[in-house]
Amino acid sequence: KSHNLLKERRQCKHVSHTDAAAVTQKRPNGVSSRAKVLTIDTMNPTVKKVEYAVRGPIVQRAVELERELSEGIKKPFAEVIKANIGDAHAMGQQPITFFRQVLALCSYPELLNDSTFPEDAKSRARRILQSCGGNSMGSYSASQGIDSVRQDVARYIERRDGGVPCDPDNIYLTTGASDGIVTMLKLLVCGEGATRTGVMISIPQYPLYSAALAELGAVQINYYLNEEKCWSMDISELQRALDEARRHCNPRALCIINPGNPTGQVQSRQCIEDVIRFAAKERLFLMADEVYQDNVYADGCQFHSFKKVLFEMGPEYSNTVELVSFHSTSKCYMGECGFRGGYMEIINMDNEVKAQLTKLVSVRLCPPVPGQALMDLVVNPPQPGEPSYENFIKERTATLSALAEKAKLTEQVLNTVQGISCNPVQGAMYSFPRITISAKAYCKQVHTPDMFYCMKMLEETGICLVPGSGFGQKDGTYHFRMTILPPTDKLKILLNKVKEFHQKFTQQYT
Amino acid sequence: KSHNLLKERRQCKHVSHTDAAAVTQKRPNGVSSRAKVLTIDTMNPTVKKVEYAVRGPIVQRAVELERELSEGIKKPFAEVIKANIGDAHAMGQQPITFFRQVLALCSYPELLNDSTFPEDAKSRARRILQSCGGNSMGSYSASQGIDSVRQDVARYIERRDGGVPCDPDNIYLTTGASDGIVTMLKLLVCGEGATRTGVMISIPQYPLYSAALAELGAVQINYYLNEEKCWSMDISELQRALDEARRHCNPRALCIINPGNPTGQVQSRQCIEDVIRFAAKERLFLMADEVYQDNVYADGCQFHSFKKVLFEMGPEYSNTVELVSFHSTSKCYMGECGFRGGYMEIINMDNEVKAQLTKLVSVRLCPPVPGQALMDLVVNPPQPGEPSYENFIKERTATLSALAEKAKLTEQVLNTVQGISCNPVQGAMYSFPRITISAKAYCKQVHTPDMFYCMKMLEETGICLVPGSGFGQKDGTYHFRMTILPPTDKLKILLNKVKEFHQKFTQQYT
Repeated sequence: KSHNLLKERRQCKHVSHTDAAAVTQKRPNGVSSRAKVLTIDTMNPTVKKVEYAVRGPIVQRAVELERELSEGIKKPFAEVIKANIGDAHAMGQQPITFFRQVLALCSYPELLNDSTFPEDAKSRARRILQSCGGNSMGSYSASQGIDSVRQDVARYIERRDGGVPCDPDNIYLTTGASDGIVTMLKLLVCGEGATRTGVMISIPQYPLYSAALAELGAVQINYYLNEEKCWSMDISELQRALDEARRHCNPRALCIINPGNPTGQVQSRQCIEDVIRFAAKERLFLMADEVYQDNVYADGCQFHSFKKVLFEMGPEYSNTVELVSFHSTSKCYMGECGFRGGYMEIINMDNEVKAQLTKLVSVRLCPPVPGQALMDLVVNPPQPGEPSYENFIKERTATLSALAEKAKLTEQVLNTVQGISCNPVQGAMYSFPRITISAKAYCKQVHTPDMFYCMKMLEETGICLVPGSGFGQKDGTYHFRMTILPPTDKLKILLNKVKEFHQKFTQQYT
Repeated sequence: KSHNLLKERRQCKHVSHTDAAAVTQKRPNGVSSRAKVLTIDTMNPTVKKVEYAVRGPIVQRAVELERELSEGIKKPFAEVIKANIGDAHAMGQQPITFFRQVLALCSYPELLNDSTFPEDAKSRARRILQSCGGNSMGSYSASQGIDSVRQDVARYIERRDGGVPCDPDNIYLTTGASDGIVTMLKLLVCGEGATRTGVMISIPQYPLYSAALAELGAVQINYYLNEEKCWSMDISELQRALDEARRHCNPRALCIINPGNPTGQVQSRQCIEDVIRFAAKERLFLMADEVYQDNVYADGCQFHSFKKVLFEMGPEYSNTVELVSFHSTSKCYMGECGFRGGYMEIINMDNEVKAQLTKLVSVRLCPPVPGQALMDLVVNPPQPGEPSYENFIKERTATLSALAEKAKLTEQVLNTVQGISCNPVQGAMYSFPRITISAKAYCKQVHTPDMFYCMKMLEETGICLVPGSGFGQKDGTYHFRMTILPPTDKLKILLNKVKEFHQKFTQQYT
């Protein structure tokens, strides 16, 4: 399997310049028409394998429908609701006032003279600007990220993890978490045929992983989360996937998303320990995607960082297991997707490889400085006693409790629908309910039943979801991913429309 | 040559998990010590080939020296001057007031009620925010970039190019120009052995290109700019390079940087026409890096966009030649490197490939929204009659004329030095003078004479430059790249220190 993958990966149709001359044709007006240099056959074939369902065909159709609506074309709905993407602000979530005040001060430092800005915002802004070349956000930062921000990130991690030490030198600021994840995969993926790098990813997964692996020509090794046990990880399933993969590739890395996307599960501490033990025993490089670390809603659930658990397992593990953890400004209570802020913490990386990593990130100069500034505020928010503290806490609490409420509401409503079964949304920003639909529900243009279902839902209700096939699911099962982000009253309407649609659909396609 | 490159590219040392168990050793304290999963031997070998001199070893040393200075360690200089990187704000250049006002308004829309902000800044901010999901810069934008920004970019291009039409659908906003360049190369590079994609780049070049080609495992095809003719392009040299490359790879693309980096040459209209004709005849995909398009200083020089020249050459060319042009917010008069704003314009791309491009950029969601907002202001600046117009013109003129003055000053002073020969700095932000030094000027640790020269200059004067070997140069010649960005009085001091150092160095190493 990996043999063919690699062969395909390398080949592209070679049209020599002499061939091209031969396909030159003259059109009636005398203008030459001839084969382009870059065509679907001559382009890099690995790019063709890349899919990203979160912004795939269904979203393109949603955008078309929006355009048609704006042109006055009548539809069975008044608006398109984009419940496909984890974009909180687009759904009306408000930014944290303090963060935006500091960003404004950093953008236009004249405002440091403006008495309407609180002192703590000003002192944060001054600190950030002092760390920027020429005291300007317009300077490139160091490629690893602004020094003082990395120090603040390290302190945040130490506080979050109950004192487990964090070395700022192990922190790399990134352009969103996606950037860090792709960079790490670039370092890891090599070899060919039976030695081609394999990377274990959860099914269902966030399709950045499958897209990156496709582009890099790595072998994607699927391990299935257990839907019956609220999407938890099973070590026996990890073992099965790994043993099977070893027959045809070189598995080297294990990716976990916790809290999970699309599933929302918050893994137990025991489970995280088991995964670490598994990775140590089987010599796998761990990649822990923790961008939803503040999005934990369910009673009895708690976020445990892989870093903390690793260190609490003692030096046999904490000195040896190679781990990279990722965070972002896009989710949690911030929802600042557009700023592309993020960081990764590197644990136990070989020093020579670290030097290569540092060199690699230097080519792209630096992550966006506004995103770095924002990350600084996320890890160093207002403290008790500071002027902005109360309002900050109020805003953060309001956002997180609204999300918790909506998580519960979503689970409840969807579970009243015959043929929809929704696991508790323990964390993150999505529900990933299972839908019981006929395997015969498809048409000539749309081959997968869940895509057919979602397309119909879009056309009939204006609600844009992503079919489970975009994330991966067990054969013969169907799901969709829907965000919990619309405001509560809108979400209620949405959920009821989904309910109605499902009932109608299952009647129509039995 | 390309055979070996590809073979190396794929291989990496495969340490099976059973091997690894065998190398587990117990340390005295009972803690296992064993080979890491990710080592210099087992990592992706193409990453190891990547070099980026602009932030390479000499800069790392400069950062160390800065640290030592800050710790009070005595040096022969009071400060380190980083004349290695095109970062204008770091060197004291001021941002455009209007741009920063709009960015502040977009970050913290409360300021729309603040009477100290001019109306035109407010209306620009409102327009940008209205184009953002939830009216927030924190939302993801469309992956191709905010619609209204792309429309503004298209109008800018049409104005710049004397009315040549621009379709907003051909505009992709990017995370700096580097992002767009790498994305295009990803689409282009494939094949193996004799069909491996070759990409023509100028020598000297901006080392993003060589780094990206190394990482992608493409064949780098060097064509030499003519130092004797002020770094102009020679079609006969392009032909030579291409013919030679065709013997061992599949050349498909031709990259040009105009105005040039590091050389500063501004290509004549005739030259651009000749290059287009060459690309058409030889079936090469053109990549035109035009990030310095406003940085043109020398009398008789003018920026001509490849797009405009292409269209003025008539439909035989404008309907067929595949061209991508790149621009950025990092240079020109803006210098907003940290915001990572950019765009590319795609001409005559195959529709299916364009769909693949659109899909590829969707995986990374979107470029940073502050950078997109900034690009909007660059292409849609204050107009005559608007409140901010006069100040905008004043600031832009001051910045560009200071750069022109410093370009001339640099050329003049360096040319007074025996053994330094500096071509006119026609544009961009750098001088790339040739230095006559002994080929025997090196030591055990530093093998290339120009690197040895630059390292010594750094240690003795605190001035950080980049050796010509980082950009490429004809065998047996040596150069360095120095920015023209420090403030004029500081630049004068710098240039004199360079002069003194050179005289001392050439005495010492004859």
